[in-house]
Amino acid sequence: MAQDISPEWIGIDHRADSASVWAMRGTEVLATRELATGVSAGANTGEADLADHLRGLISDWQIEDGTQIITCGAAAPPRDMTDFRAVPCAPLAAAPATSPLRIAGLRQATPPDLMQGDETRIAGFLSLHPDWGGVICLTGPQSRWVQISAGEVVSFQTFMTGELAALLSDRSTLQPAIATDTWDEAAFTEALAETVSRPEKLAARLYGIHAHSMLGESSATSRGRLLGYLSGAELAAARAYWLGQQIAVIGGDDLAAPYVAALAAQGVPATRASAKRMTLAGLCAAYRLLGAKA
Amino acid sequence: MAQDISPEWIGIDHRADSASVWAMRGTEVLATRELATGVSAGANTGEADLADHLRGLISDWQIEDGTQIITCGAAAPPRDMTDFRAVPCAPLAAAPATSPLRIAGLRQATPPDLMQGDETRIAGFLSLHPDWGGVICLTGPQSRWVQISAGEVVSFQTFMTGELAALLSDRSTLQPAIATDTWDEAAFTEALAETVSRPEKLAARLYGIHAHSMLGESSATSRGRLLGYLSGAELAAARAYWLGQQIAVIGGDDLAAPYVAALAAQGVPATRASAKRMTLAGLCAAYRLLGAKA
Repeated sequence: MAQDISPEWIGIDHRADSASVWAMRGTEVLATRELATGVSAGANTGEADLADHLRGLISDWQIEDGTQIITCGAAAPPRDMTDFRAVPCAPLAAAPATSPLRIAGLRQATPPDLMQGDETRIAGFLSLHPDWGGVICLTGPQSRWVQISAGEVVSFQTFMTGELAALLSDRSTLQPAIATDTWDEAAFTEALAETVSRPEKLAARLYGIHAHSMLGESSATSRGRLLGYLSGAELAAARAYWLGQQIAVIGGDDLAAPYVAALAAQGVPATRASAKRMTLAGLCAAYRLLGAKA
Repeated sequence: MAQDISPEWIGIDHRADSASVWAMRGTEVLATRELATGVSAGANTGEADLADHLRGLISDWQIEDGTQIITCGAAAPPRDMTDFRAVPCAPLAAAPATSPLRIAGLRQATPPDLMQGDETRIAGFLSLHPDWGGVICLTGPQSRWVQISAGEVVSFQTFMTGELAALLSDRSTLQPAIATDTWDEAAFTEALAETVSRPEKLAARLYGIHAHSMLGESSATSRGRLLGYLSGAELAAARAYWLGQQIAVIGGDDLAAPYVAALAAQGVPATRASAKRMTLAGLCAAYRLLGAKA
């Protein structure tokens, strides 16, 4: 028979296509569960359905009325701005009047930008590196470059590079050319160098991936090219964020690797941190900071 | 009872998601039919199935053994390079050993590029403007800038701008923000000016469309922004093609309009021509030039 799981509090991280749930006692993880959500999992993403799925997922946990629940991120784009706090500000605060307790996202007026979920990973990173200042790059379908100073998020810039790479890989004319999960690092580095220095080449080079493929190029080389062109265009646009800065890249292995390689090619060393570990650390920081008040 | 249709020859234009068929006598159109193909129409795009669909579509036409059939374009990406001729060359020639007669696509070695279908529209435009020299811009899911001199295609550059716009409109985080067919011209012009002069901003601005939308911007404004940013990036990369050149834009009304507006914003006037009329004129030119030999 399974061991009883009686959490003191529960942390939930909502992402666009999945969610993670942790049963916690203080900073100790009693159990963790993963839920695939979103269109790609064939699940209904309505909030009520999602809550039902989550309840079903942890139905064997002993949850009492007083068990604190802390959530971050979002399963769907937000419908209003009340859950967002304006930067510059510390990464962690509760959204107003929510139950369960929800960590507020961050918004920036100029240029307009939003994050919801990454603020928790940033808080996690800063809880483990209290006096850290510099730039955090968070990878994902949307990637973010975030300037940190004196424990506050000063400014940030979101890119759709990962989402574009997925759309081009799965649903575009380029799909047959890059139908592989591997990528050639030499092709990546060459393509990256081209769009870092001449970002206008991105638009001109994409269809060339198809043409190169027709002329016999391997799919790993084509995929290396695609990731290189896209990463180079992002680096060119984010130059003010990484040039001469201390950088930490937070992400899963598959998504973080091109960023670390791209920064290394520009002579910029980067610290790596796991997105999942930073999320958990951020939820723990929220429990310490916010949970006690609730 | 329907009138008998007895074509002297038949012209077929294959595109990624549709095909057009003309019953012809000389340059006179006896009848024309349209066929939706591809994934979006729910049809199987296998070549045998496509041929069956086409036969069914024109089953009432009187077709004899000697009826010449001329095809251009492709329903699917090509599998080999034998159907492509190297530029610089005149736009029209038959692919080797094909029956029915198929107009060969064009290929370019450096930078690698391909076209299959647009060469026929170029030939149609040149058949109507015999001494024309300058640059032809062909719109579509893939757009092409083609340098024409002395009746030959000298060089060309393909962009995936239309395909990117469709992917971002239908399948990305931006979908809720731009769920409209209309676009605000002021927003378009402003966004265009930004990426024409600073193309690296494209990567930085896409997610901002979502953020602007969350802050209350209308979907027509958001869509104007998206088309403007993408068009500006294409114009920046294609500058050598349009700067100081005589330009003709060949396309359908919906796709050609942003190009004409974008060029006008750069002070470049452009002649417009209908893609469908140019395809038909190109097939007629092919019948005159190639059909008699068959």
